[in-house]
Amino acid sequence: MKYGIALFPPKNIQDFANSYRKRYDSHYALIPPHVTLKSPFDADDQEVKTIVKELRKIAAETDLIPLKITKFSSFYPVNNVIYLKIEPNETLERLHKQLYSGIFTDKPEYVFVPHITIGRDLSNAEYADVYGQLKMQTVHFEETVDRFHLLYQLENGSWTVYETFRVGKEQE
Amino acid sequence: MKYGIALFPPKNIQDFANSYRKRYDSHYALIPPHVTLKSPFDADDQEVKTIVKELRKIAAETDLIPLKITKFSSFYPVNNVIYLKIEPNETLERLHKQLYSGIFTDKPEYVFVPHITIGRDLSNAEYADVYGQLKMQTVHFEETVDRFHLLYQLENGSWTVYETFRVGKEQE
Repeated sequence: MKYGIALFPPKNIQDFANSYRKRYDSHYALIPPHVTLKSPFDADDQEVKTIVKELRKIAAETDLIPLKITKFSSFYPVNNVIYLKIEPNETLERLHKQLYSGIFTDKPEYVFVPHITIGRDLSNAEYADVYGQLKMQTVHFEETVDRFHLLYQLENGSWTVYETFRVGKEQE
Repeated sequence: MKYGIALFPPKNIQDFANSYRKRYDSHYALIPPHVTLKSPFDADDQEVKTIVKELRKIAAETDLIPLKITKFSSFYPVNNVIYLKIEPNETLERLHKQLYSGIFTDKPEYVFVPHITIGRDLSNAEYADVYGQLKMQTVHFEETVDRFHLLYQLENGSWTVYETFRVGKEQE
């Protein structure tokens, strides 16, 4: 099965992201607004058991995750993805690194740029138009997130949550 | 915020359900195929903390949940919902009961008929046509489920998983 690891931002940020995703993101119906922590990977039932144990261990050592968003950005010219940029922080960086080391032998395809995609698969003209407007907008969210999720993909491309991992040592 | 409690059947059942939901279920894009354990209810941040603690306690006392599906059924004439019928079992019954007692003061609107919806909001003609075909089909799934989920609803009507609760004492 195909698995992925992601975190969901708080509801206010998800609602904000969806107001754009509805029009611009072809994955709108497949998964809620999210920050990908580890790209989709294949694992069988036995491997997933090991992965879940490892994720519990990693989560137990992870602090609450700051999520500061101050602007829209884009991966152009690599692709036409438009996203809400998450300010890099040590907690996210370390978490990402841990998800690509130890038992995780695959390597990240790109440098880690934490983000919430709000547009993709746009034509060049549409991309230029939409991004031209969004990059002028001011955005400000400052939140913390206390959990991330392991998800698996269904045949129709949508994602179902398999398990939640809570972070932040002060949690009860 | 609006919350709900549901379980997701294994991937094979979700894929099977989606092959129908895609055409017949207006909620197809809002949530993966699921069995509703507790209907949507409102709770604030403080109440949810209490609810999460209670759900952990309930989950710890719950056995693995059998999921046996042998036919399509329908809520007609109450409404035109078509669903995969889950054979009632003691574990599901008790879990449902616990989600409507103790700290949960709301009462179930209907008798508990565990099911996975695969069609809704169909016209009477379409309902008759589709259900006429489906009720002749044989279906057979026999699985167990080792977790259920607390979800919350976004402004667009879609559901995001808040937390997973694992059941089944023999689990590591």
